[in-house]
Amino acid sequence: MADLPVSPLAPAGFPDLPVIDGVRFATAEAGVKYQGRTDVMLAVLDAGSVIAGTFTKSATRSSNVLDCQRKIGSHSECGAAIIVNSGNSNAFTGRAGDQSVRAICEAVASETGLPAERVFTSSTGVIGERLPHERINAKIAELTQTLSETGLADAAKAIMTTDTFAKGSSAAIDVNGRTVHIAGIAKGSGMIAPDMATMLVYIFTDAKINQPDLQSMLSDLTEVTFNSITVDSDTSTSDTLLMAATGASNADVVVDSSAFKGALHGVMLDLAHQVVRDGEGATKFVEVEITGAATDADARTHALSIANSPLVKTAIAGEDPNWGRIVMAIGKSGAAADRDLLTIRFGDIVVAENGWVAQSYTEDDGASYMKQQDLKIGVDLGLGTGTAKVWTCDLTHQYITINADYRS
Amino acid sequence: MADLPVSPLAPAGFPDLPVIDGVRFATAEAGVKYQGRTDVMLAVLDAGSVIAGTFTKSATRSSNVLDCQRKIGSHSECGAAIIVNSGNSNAFTGRAGDQSVRAICEAVASETGLPAERVFTSSTGVIGERLPHERINAKIAELTQTLSETGLADAAKAIMTTDTFAKGSSAAIDVNGRTVHIAGIAKGSGMIAPDMATMLVYIFTDAKINQPDLQSMLSDLTEVTFNSITVDSDTSTSDTLLMAATGASNADVVVDSSAFKGALHGVMLDLAHQVVRDGEGATKFVEVEITGAATDADARTHALSIANSPLVKTAIAGEDPNWGRIVMAIGKSGAAADRDLLTIRFGDIVVAENGWVAQSYTEDDGASYMKQQDLKIGVDLGLGTGTAKVWTCDLTHQYITINADYRS
Repeated sequence: MADLPVSPLAPAGFPDLPVIDGVRFATAEAGVKYQGRTDVMLAVLDAGSVIAGTFTKSATRSSNVLDCQRKIGSHSECGAAIIVNSGNSNAFTGRAGDQSVRAICEAVASETGLPAERVFTSSTGVIGERLPHERINAKIAELTQTLSETGLADAAKAIMTTDTFAKGSSAAIDVNGRTVHIAGIAKGSGMIAPDMATMLVYIFTDAKINQPDLQSMLSDLTEVTFNSITVDSDTSTSDTLLMAATGASNADVVVDSSAFKGALHGVMLDLAHQVVRDGEGATKFVEVEITGAATDADARTHALSIANSPLVKTAIAGEDPNWGRIVMAIGKSGAAADRDLLTIRFGDIVVAENGWVAQSYTEDDGASYMKQQDLKIGVDLGLGTGTAKVWTCDLTHQYITINADYRS
Repeated sequence: MADLPVSPLAPAGFPDLPVIDGVRFATAEAGVKYQGRTDVMLAVLDAGSVIAGTFTKSATRSSNVLDCQRKIGSHSECGAAIIVNSGNSNAFTGRAGDQSVRAICEAVASETGLPAERVFTSSTGVIGERLPHERINAKIAELTQTLSETGLADAAKAIMTTDTFAKGSSAAIDVNGRTVHIAGIAKGSGMIAPDMATMLVYIFTDAKINQPDLQSMLSDLTEVTFNSITVDSDTSTSDTLLMAATGASNADVVVDSSAFKGALHGVMLDLAHQVVRDGEGATKFVEVEITGAATDADARTHALSIANSPLVKTAIAGEDPNWGRIVMAIGKSGAAADRDLLTIRFGDIVVAENGWVAQSYTEDDGASYMKQQDLKIGVDLGLGTGTAKVWTCDLTHQYITINADYRS
């Protein structure tokens, strides 16, 4: 497809990412589908690294995801590799898909000296077409020979598909006098919904942590970050978040280390928000916050019902303060609601309460608020203490343009 | 909003509807919101009529719906009236909404001599703005004085909002030598999803049937007709289906009368399909049929996941045979699926089977099929005997145009 303009919601630029001791990166142009750009990235982790991951729950997930899930539990001290291609998702490619994963893992193992069991793969792009893995394998020698500690920014570019900007984030914290770094990259702009739709995320840290502790933190934080964003309610077959801790800082981190967990939360939330900000066709970034629901689960149901409603999302695109559609989305969600106890806010503006429009509300106030690029929709159910936050974008002509023509 | 072009999927014309003995209709220009067109319809039913209904399950449903639900169970032989306005839904209008319903019912009761308990109201249009019911009440004398047996076609026009064509359907069957007629009208083109989004349907018959039998048939048939269509997954706060049987034919119909139920099913399915064919911005009419699911409920979950997927709907708009997105929608639905047992068909063309594209399938065949206006997507899960059918339309630029600008 033609080059897309950079999202109006993109950050000013790609951040400076710190070097993470113990991991090196390389990228190459394998020509899997795209021409004239990098489309493969390889990360090689030193001995002693541990890897955790979270994955799509799709029942039709790709061979790559199934393979990563099988390997993720095994603990090994011998190092590891992550190889990712863009342009072809290797999803719904039958036994050929399994064979492609095996072939890539064996080729990486052969060049790096790692066991194939410690090679993790991801593929992203069109579904249902055979992955020409031989094009990837033809580049593995070149990749292993050009590994660099500073290659993470280039890796962020190589994994892009319909993304309009590369996504990165980092944090540094002090752990007992030693500095621990976290740096991550992500891709994804369509097929984004809770349960990690068409999203690939790779996060690296030099913290020293055991695999179960890392996995536990990552699983917790995925729920309130990547599983709390939605662009179009469509969940992909390939979503993968892999996190590697090299231990090179020699700073010990445990599961209840709130400073580390807080920093990791920040990196994950930043990357998740960047994915929404690159939502296909997005012109508005929207936070939906539910309070006062009967339960947290009900709050999440209401939040997603609002965030996924085409009528809410098109109203936002039109800068129309059409709060009636929010009432509609609350009503249809299936979670508990009482029409006469609802309070709806746009930012700090109380729009509706006591079952009707608020007396202090004016359409001008609402229309003026909706012109902002970043919006907050708040709904209090007045029923209990359940809360949830999700993030989404608007639904525009550009979404239709991108997706009615994706394969052409 | 500006006049919309008639949907390319519209029927050739409005059907000739039979006179239903025992019911008369009138329409008027009340200026609730629209100018220069009719926006109120009144139907008055003779003594002996029974009324059944099905309604939105929204937790924030309108005062009108709540009032109809309360009244529907009461059995009375004294006749009844149905009054409907377009332009304002009277939903989320607090206590003022309840007062409007009461005021309209009392005005109709006063002019017709019916008890207010036998007056049923519906309102459709924008949410959250006070219904100027005094404009409706100012027309009730005129309406009662112009009632006509042949006014059903005009009534279909008066209840339209963003509809681009009026919707009607009818059937006639022989019951023990007597002819029984069924005639119905519907409106609705956005906010359409199972649980009867922004849809109003009124069906009349001269059959003689008791209220519980009529209600039982209507509830059954709603599930496989109006609750099996979706335009945008958004459910309205006002959906109402009312059916009245006048008994004027003196032909007795009971709940297990398969001929009558079959004819009613036909009328309801025709009207439901017309609603989809008027889906906002629709250019394709799509039947999704699931077979081989573990259960009927699973089949329905898969069918709706496909029918509501923005990525599937935009691919259809682009005439792109992107069956990978169907695999995605099956995978994300949450219902049971086995990647390697799926079979996907476009019409009679087998597209994918055994976990991959079918050997006999060519992209040209798929692309050629997708150019048709009426499409069938078939998925066999290979797991059991569960089946479901739902109907939907594509997602186009015109949907965005209509909905990003609805209130302006």
